[in-house]
Amino acid sequence: MAKKNLLYAQSGGVTAVINASAAGVIQTAWEYPDMIGKVYAGRDGIVGILKEDLIDTGQERRDSIAALRHTPGGAFGSARYKLKSLTENKAEYERLIKVFQAHDIGYFIYNGGNDSMDTAHKISQIGEAMGYPVICVGVPKTVDNDLAITDNCPGFGSVAKYVATSTREAAIDVLSMKQTKVFIMEVMGRHAGWIAASGGLAGRLEHEPPHLILFPEIPLDEIAFMNKVEKAVKQWDNCVIVVSEGVRWPNGEFVSDAGVKDAFGHTQLGGAAPVLANMIRHRFGYKYHYAVVDYLQRSARHIASKTDVDQAYAMGKAAVEFATAGRNAVMPTIERITDSPYRWRVGVADLKDVANEEKKVPRNFISRDGFHITAACRRYLEPLIQGEDFPPFRDGLPYYVHLKNRKVPRRLKTKFEVDA
Amino acid sequence: MAKKNLLYAQSGGVTAVINASAAGVIQTAWEYPDMIGKVYAGRDGIVGILKEDLIDTGQERRDSIAALRHTPGGAFGSARYKLKSLTENKAEYERLIKVFQAHDIGYFIYNGGNDSMDTAHKISQIGEAMGYPVICVGVPKTVDNDLAITDNCPGFGSVAKYVATSTREAAIDVLSMKQTKVFIMEVMGRHAGWIAASGGLAGRLEHEPPHLILFPEIPLDEIAFMNKVEKAVKQWDNCVIVVSEGVRWPNGEFVSDAGVKDAFGHTQLGGAAPVLANMIRHRFGYKYHYAVVDYLQRSARHIASKTDVDQAYAMGKAAVEFATAGRNAVMPTIERITDSPYRWRVGVADLKDVANEEKKVPRNFISRDGFHITAACRRYLEPLIQGEDFPPFRDGLPYYVHLKNRKVPRRLKTKFEVDA
Repeated sequence: MAKKNLLYAQSGGVTAVINASAAGVIQTAWEYPDMIGKVYAGRDGIVGILKEDLIDTGQERRDSIAALRHTPGGAFGSARYKLKSLTENKAEYERLIKVFQAHDIGYFIYNGGNDSMDTAHKISQIGEAMGYPVICVGVPKTVDNDLAITDNCPGFGSVAKYVATSTREAAIDVLSMKQTKVFIMEVMGRHAGWIAASGGLAGRLEHEPPHLILFPEIPLDEIAFMNKVEKAVKQWDNCVIVVSEGVRWPNGEFVSDAGVKDAFGHTQLGGAAPVLANMIRHRFGYKYHYAVVDYLQRSARHIASKTDVDQAYAMGKAAVEFATAGRNAVMPTIERITDSPYRWRVGVADLKDVANEEKKVPRNFISRDGFHITAACRRYLEPLIQGEDFPPFRDGLPYYVHLKNRKVPRRLKTKFEVDA
Repeated sequence: MAKKNLLYAQSGGVTAVINASAAGVIQTAWEYPDMIGKVYAGRDGIVGILKEDLIDTGQERRDSIAALRHTPGGAFGSARYKLKSLTENKAEYERLIKVFQAHDIGYFIYNGGNDSMDTAHKISQIGEAMGYPVICVGVPKTVDNDLAITDNCPGFGSVAKYVATSTREAAIDVLSMKQTKVFIMEVMGRHAGWIAASGGLAGRLEHEPPHLILFPEIPLDEIAFMNKVEKAVKQWDNCVIVVSEGVRWPNGEFVSDAGVKDAFGHTQLGGAAPVLANMIRHRFGYKYHYAVVDYLQRSARHIASKTDVDQAYAMGKAAVEFATAGRNAVMPTIERITDSPYRWRVGVADLKDVANEEKKVPRNFISRDGFHITAACRRYLEPLIQGEDFPPFRDGLPYYVHLKNRKVPRRLKTKFEVDA
């Protein structure tokens, strides 16, 4: 294949290490000067590509690209934008191929979750059909850890480390405070409870917090839950709970959708934590505290897992190696060799097998009563939070890079509207 | 003075570094074997002393005491318990003196905020009056940074570093996400906005987040606020807000008391962040995220400020040095010598001057429009977050010590009921 340009894009919710994957992609691309010309990125992901709004990473300083390894967020911007099916909106796919053609893109590297792998897969098909074949390679990314085939997803290990650390720290605080009886920490994971599960790493013995973990995989039995809370407070003097934002009642309703209304009668989009805290207060009168960590958990690069950073970088690097080897419609994966000592290697999956699959926490990773993790889950999770990889600090704060993100001159005359 | 025992107690909300003060007290006490016998601690602070529930720190391993320097929470337990005035409940003060007498306590070191300094001051008076003089020395502690006389309070610098770091990280996340327009982070500070102010350190230039800071010192003008939010979103494509839990409307009501009711009609004790987020959504339709960090901010020892840790230890050490020098009813303070380079020394204040005083954020530290910090505030805050002091990590998580907390045998026959 003649020398072609490479286009990289970030997709969906960002993570503490998605930029480490970007660094892996860009720095590895530099190693193939005979095959890869320019390295471009889509501004705000696929939305920028549709709009022909591309960024020339060649305009950045080399040390800025290196600094992506320790910078959270998505350096080129990301968007939640799922392309429709080929039959529903073929125009979008055709537009992408036109942009690729206009900018001589031979390699498309898409960094995202299962939706994005589906998109990358479709693009790999349509390019061929339109007579402009482009090599499409995915790079796995999601804090939710719900991608199929790969043993774990870059982004997850760092959230897990943050959540386990925060649970341990807050629990020490609760234990210190005579009056506070209940502490609830709400974490991400709308459909899969991997992040909530990672809170379980904060303790090892029965009395060590967290005492309860609420998973989206397990419908919440109110009576069993209340009994557990009461028992923990009686036995250990407090109850520390990690709850996934996606926990539901047996009827399928999200706990967070409790129909909370403010003084103006507006429905308030709630969290699960305040709803549960309020229920506990009304039932038992326990003094409670709750935290909703939201974006903090996935952007906390200061407490990232070194394992996670290394894997994120390795996935970006492998993607470029696959692409230059002519492997189309694939995604590098993390293959676990052994749990302890933890050993892993880079594997590969076909995009079609990853696309739209969702890997939930298996039942044998959740304790029989549904409120904690099992030893098997612990064996799986523990390696993923190993090692620290502190960013550089300046003036007391982590120093993160901001790229210039210079625009590549447009070549197409037509504009394209994107509803995002 | 003959050799006497020393009694140490922690009070009020704990911090990431109150145990560093405890280490300073205990390790320094070891340096005065001719003057100080046993080093005891009150279990759950003053409540344990009233109940004659004392802990013998001499039963701990020396390396466990050393590990307190990097362990958050209150290792001996803490309580929010304010003694009434001498006229209202003289029995409590008499009980304290009896416990002191029974255990040969000659030095009482009380580690807390302004309420606790008031208590320590009263105890120093009553002991004298009852013919059992005891040297009472306070050790400043509060994340709220609202103690008088001392330039800053141990505990605050680490929260400030956590809040500024988290604001910077979450803001990078928001900036990455094309669709999210507003991010609100709620922090502690019921009466004083020091913690909210520290969020301002996350950025330096006008466009750098946070774009708005809401202080308890400034009544919230809804129209001005909404205009600022809209302007930030239009100008910078997003608006990052740090809000103090104690922010109030002009009529004095807490923003968090929005009268939110859940599906059962129960009033929900809300945070200010969800209330404001909801208002913004209803006004502009902006997609938002919010975080409520609660206990996490004050227990995040993993991102503690080295300056704060050093000062917390120094305050504990100085308290024992004052006590052994016979200085009664005083509290060591932090005296700032210069801002840049930051230099400070240990000073001293009379407990009566610290007791019940509350130091709010001065008006010249808040920008004219009431929504940000000034350069003067920045000069004050910046030194306090300098330096990292990471705890040791084991298996990917911070390793914190749990003390044995062995009980000192009771010597009094009477029990004492405490309503806490």
